Amino acid sequence: MATLKQVAAHAEVSVQTVSNALNAPHRLRPDTLERVNRSIELLNYRPNRNARSLRTSAVELIGYCVPSWPDQAHLVMDQFLHELCAAAEKTGRHILLFTAPPGVEGMPTYDDLHARRLVDGFVLSQTETHDPRHGWLKDTQIPFVSFGRVWKETTQPGPWVDVDGAAGSAMAVQHLYETGRRRIAFLSWPRSSGLAEDRLAGWRGRCKQLGLPTGGLAVRCGEDAIDEGARATAELLDSDQPPVGIVALSDILALGALRELGRRGLTPGVDVGVTGFDDSPLASVVSPGLTSLRQPMDEIACELIAILTETQSLTGTTSGVPTERLLQPELVIRGSSAPG
Amino acid sequence: MATLKQVAAHAEVSVQTVSNALNAPHRLRPDTLERVNRSIELLNYRPNRNARSLRTSAVELIGYCVPSWPDQAHLVMDQFLHELCAAAEKTGRHILLFTAPPGVEGMPTYDDLHARRLVDGFVLSQTETHDPRHGWLKDTQIPFVSFGRVWKETTQPGPWVDVDGAAGSAMAVQHLYETGRRRIAFLSWPRSSGLAEDRLAGWRGRCKQLGLPTGGLAVRCGEDAIDEGARATAELLDSDQPPVGIVALSDILALGALRELGRRGLTPGVDVGVTGFDDSPLASVVSPGLTSLRQPMDEIACELIAILTETQSLTGTTSGVPTERLLQPELVIRGSSAPG
Repeated sequence: MATLKQVAAHAEVSVQTVSNALNAPHRLRPDTLERVNRSIELLNYRPNRNARSLRTSAVELIGYCVPSWPDQAHLVMDQFLHELCAAAEKTGRHILLFTAPPGVEGMPTYDDLHARRLVDGFVLSQTETHDPRHGWLKDTQIPFVSFGRVWKETTQPGPWVDVDGAAGSAMAVQHLYETGRRRIAFLSWPRSSGLAEDRLAGWRGRCKQLGLPTGGLAVRCGEDAIDEGARATAELLDSDQPPVGIVALSDILALGALRELGRRGLTPGVDVGVTGFDDSPLASVVSPGLTSLRQPMDEIACELIAILTETQSLTGTTSGVPTERLLQPELVIRGSSAPG
Repeated sequence: MATLKQVAAHAEVSVQTVSNALNAPHRLRPDTLERVNRSIELLNYRPNRNARSLRTSAVELIGYCVPSWPDQAHLVMDQFLHELCAAAEKTGRHILLFTAPPGVEGMPTYDDLHARRLVDGFVLSQTETHDPRHGWLKDTQIPFVSFGRVWKETTQPGPWVDVDGAAGSAMAVQHLYETGRRRIAFLSWPRSSGLAEDRLAGWRGRCKQLGLPTGGLAVRCGEDAIDEGARATAELLDSDQPPVGIVALSDILALGALRELGRRGLTPGVDVGVTGFDDSPLASVVSPGLTSLRQPMDEIACELIAILTETQSLTGTTSGVPTERLLQPELVIRGSSAPG
């Protein structure tokens, strides 16, 4: 049986457009609708209309827990929220915001919102390693989809969309390699973070592929803070063989690297190439600008909404839409990694 | 007849607590509830229960238009949204997010959401000078409250909460004065912005009070961008009498000032004191940190929700809550304005 994605590829449109053809055909131009419908017919695509889905709901609201403040990891949250809202509206739905304590303590809030029919399902983000929400929602049979994985040793509970962190780190290494760097370090987080291990593995894998050294070049930072990025960079620069490239697993750590380079009279992009992760507003306001990996927020949002509204997200079975989507980040090149 | 604010003052609690005593008494500690009820009785406070208010609505959702992206002026939006959401929940309500085109083009979206009873009223933010939404919503008798003023020559349409920009600039000038600076410049926006004129007036007024010069010290930037802040700073530093203090009307312009100082080998906080506005995440990640004016987001959010839920916001008449609230910002001092 064909998937929604195969239909989209066949009709040369986005997954969202196929979803619209099924749920909100009036939103499409007639010629587009005709093309999509032809592909649906040719590929014999059948959306699972019997599945318990948001489509049958009257209220048509999707819950999203607004992260607590302050937390610098949420620097791109407003961008994500805008795209999520726009994607939901394309299907005639809206986002209901709420606050909840982190972890299991917040679960009664999710349960209450769903029981009162205020929302039909949830989009989770700020997913933590071993995040308890996913398994709880799955067990409780409340529809949800996650931006980010919980990195359990076993299978991920429920459907998810994520960005390929390993591929992102590999892209950063490749870029620094192609601009002439041969000794490339990695600024990481503590070992307990699945996200960090993923990005670290991408750096290590590509370095090995390219025949570059990795020994002594991965430094773990205690937390995601400028000071920690600067400290780790100092440690690297003080070693016998200092690196000429630094891949940081966040923009915050990368800014720490830039600060330490500046303090030593070294010029980012000339003496040492530096890259970050997230392409947050911080990346373009420092001077030189920070090369960083952009997460495709529009695509992430469309996939999340498509999965939540098209699948039985409570059981994880599909109705044409894949329920696990790993998207590719994009390297945005700025002065911090100018050819060395 | 007593106002909600008078009741709050009498009971020595916040306006929000009085509102909770009326609408969600179970959320208060018994002794607090008793104290508030005693004040209500003593002052003969009667909430206007006949007014068409959100309190009578079944859906209990408040609409908020998520700003379009990218726009660096929204750097503190996630903080605002979290506080707004928390304030709404304290009254048993939630925030419904939506997207709409800016200006009058977006009005059908507001109208539609209200007509379909998806929301009972709106909180507006990203208020522009001469923003057409406020007058339109007032004429259409759709309840709303605005974060920010439209700066019309005539009266502001409908209720609002805002931060006193003039007082903020005056605080920044006072701080630079007290740290020994006597020649203090101002980085502004184009004359068409009411917000900019307000902050500029605060700088000028306090400089005059303190006997400080202002001639040639106010520079207008073409837009809110790092490059513009740097250009304006260069213009000031190249003048016959360069300033030793710079009050910028945004964090972005202030970062431009920091960049230009660095480029010339000048040290922020030592050679020139610099302040920004908004206390965005940018302020604490640059080195030295940027002194900046923090908007009291929790207070702003509580006032917005109190006004929207307690007043007939459609006519602007009050039911105990003032419908125009000017709040004071707080100066957060960092290295960029260390004693000179």
